[in-house]
Amino acid sequence: MAEIEGAPTRRGPTLRDVARRAQVSVATASRALTSDYPVAEPTRAKVLQAVEELQYVVTSRTPKRSAPATSIAMIVSDVVSPLRSLVATGVAEAAGDYGRLSAVYITGGDLRREEEVFARLEEQDDVEAVILVGGVELTDDYEQRMEKHARALHARGSQLVLCGRPPLAPGVPALVVEYDNRGGAYAVTSHLLSMGHRRILTLTGPERSTTTIGRVEGYRTAHQDFGTAIDPALVIANTADRSGGYQGCLRALAEGLRFTAIFAHNDVMASGALAALREKGLSVPDDISLVGYDNIPVAQELSPPLTTVYMPHEEMGKAAVRLAVERPAPGSGRERQLLGTHIVIRTSVRPLTGGSQA
Amino acid sequence: MAEIEGAPTRRGPTLRDVARRAQVSVATASRALTSDYPVAEPTRAKVLQAVEELQYVVTSRTPKRSAPATSIAMIVSDVVSPLRSLVATGVAEAAGDYGRLSAVYITGGDLRREEEVFARLEEQDDVEAVILVGGVELTDDYEQRMEKHARALHARGSQLVLCGRPPLAPGVPALVVEYDNRGGAYAVTSHLLSMGHRRILTLTGPERSTTTIGRVEGYRTAHQDFGTAIDPALVIANTADRSGGYQGCLRALAEGLRFTAIFAHNDVMASGALAALREKGLSVPDDISLVGYDNIPVAQELSPPLTTVYMPHEEMGKAAVRLAVERPAPGSGRERQLLGTHIVIRTSVRPLTGGSQA
Repeated sequence: MAEIEGAPTRRGPTLRDVARRAQVSVATASRALTSDYPVAEPTRAKVLQAVEELQYVVTSRTPKRSAPATSIAMIVSDVVSPLRSLVATGVAEAAGDYGRLSAVYITGGDLRREEEVFARLEEQDDVEAVILVGGVELTDDYEQRMEKHARALHARGSQLVLCGRPPLAPGVPALVVEYDNRGGAYAVTSHLLSMGHRRILTLTGPERSTTTIGRVEGYRTAHQDFGTAIDPALVIANTADRSGGYQGCLRALAEGLRFTAIFAHNDVMASGALAALREKGLSVPDDISLVGYDNIPVAQELSPPLTTVYMPHEEMGKAAVRLAVERPAPGSGRERQLLGTHIVIRTSVRPLTGGSQA
Repeated sequence: MAEIEGAPTRRGPTLRDVARRAQVSVATASRALTSDYPVAEPTRAKVLQAVEELQYVVTSRTPKRSAPATSIAMIVSDVVSPLRSLVATGVAEAAGDYGRLSAVYITGGDLRREEEVFARLEEQDDVEAVILVGGVELTDDYEQRMEKHARALHARGSQLVLCGRPPLAPGVPALVVEYDNRGGAYAVTSHLLSMGHRRILTLTGPERSTTTIGRVEGYRTAHQDFGTAIDPALVIANTADRSGGYQGCLRALAEGLRFTAIFAHNDVMASGALAALREKGLSVPDDISLVGYDNIPVAQELSPPLTTVYMPHEEMGKAAVRLAVERPAPGSGRERQLLGTHIVIRTSVRPLTGGSQA
């Protein structure tokens, strides 16, 4: 299912690769390559050897004080969510590799703060791009605000890059990097269906979020393709955090809904659902199968380790920067990229044998 | 053990509190309080009621384009580590509450990038403070660089704030917010000792990091106070990530070290140690007791849930901003704050009865 258009390619080794090969920290590798900082000779030799083996290009990035380098800004609701922090990591790494400074602005989901950040960035001359990260509720107000900012940035020679949300109206000057919400949800739901599950509870984030809409669509399409009707009661929306997964699952159990598997719309919600099941004496996967989405680190720490959907978060941040720097021509078809996903199979799903569907 | 000096006090309810009480998202609460954005009337009524009940002060933060507001910068190696992302969250929230913009600069641990960020920030007139977050290796080079930046920022009316690392030499104009590494490690090691454990493996991060030094000191002092000698082989340094905990634990087992408990220097290392123990067929806490440090979300997801040390990460970010905004006078004794910690007891430690110490 993984359609990948314009998937990012490696742009040569990074300082991180050099550090890994030389078995030193990135800070030490950095010191060894910068004559200003002292480092032990054997260490320097190891780093230089790694540089040679990897054909790493050492560039001097000392900023010229007279002509400040361009910078790339990222606006995000939070960096506590592992996926958004990984996107931020990708943005910072790629920006560094292109010799750009990058800064992350955290809004806490407060629209006024987001507007303040835009106002500030739209005043600056050195901002090459503003990357906006994460799913969003598509409202008229949102579309109008984004169109205004896209045009304001464009007028100053800068650009708006939407990352993990859909394109704006045709003709609005914005770049887009999306992940395939529909495809990932389709794949993981099909996995459950092919294991014999027919009543799959899905715990979603806010109903009007673009992320939820895409993932519910994938869930529905998979059911259609398997010729299975969906009981609308099995789609429960809540906040997209641990507590949302926990409460949603408790509610489903309290209402006496019948289901043999749960598709939580992200891994953190899945961890909440797991806690709720455990509280009620239900075991995963023996009583209920469980899958998540995102493949964040916690997915492998759960007991049992969670089957989930891999998302290329760091690649997404890098793709956003690459788009911003390379500035594809309007109409080139490269202003929009869709990154693929795939499922990661662990041990949280049990195959159902016919008839035992609770 | 928790010495708390100048612990942060709440500065009144935030928009987040209002949103929670009104049971809406922060974005919706924000829209409801800003006449520019439409919101359904019942929703607006709920939000306004929450505002009244909480006595939330609605401030208009529309930036004045003619006189840009001051901003607060945070420099950090990464935001993937849950603790650094929580500090960033605290910085962003407190900065917003004070009407400041904040930006996070991610260096990837690359000193050249850190220097570039400083160079850029030291050129700007609107940067009220630069907050540097996270433990560090104390070298002459580090001290010199920091002194240079502290003086350069001070000369422009800005300030350097060190967060989670020790003060610089006396007379260098820098503010400091520290957490009590020694106290936290002392408390959690004492907990293990008081449960009868006498051979406690400790898995540390890089040996020269200020975080490691403080936590090893707490570990040693606790042993001294219990009159227990430490086998130096039981102190194993590695990278401060999951793989460091995993490898360190495997090494200890391969070397045939005897121990009944493990103190991992952070929760992510503890999750790696848990995976290593499980691979070798050892169960926590039946065979080996395990404690971590930080109380990040993953700690409660592990099986068994992890006993660990609570760290006030978000409060630390807020304290750094408050210091920066309030600018305590040199010599007032408020230029340095130490935030306390406490242990969180879950089920990963088993009391040893006399004689059964492996």
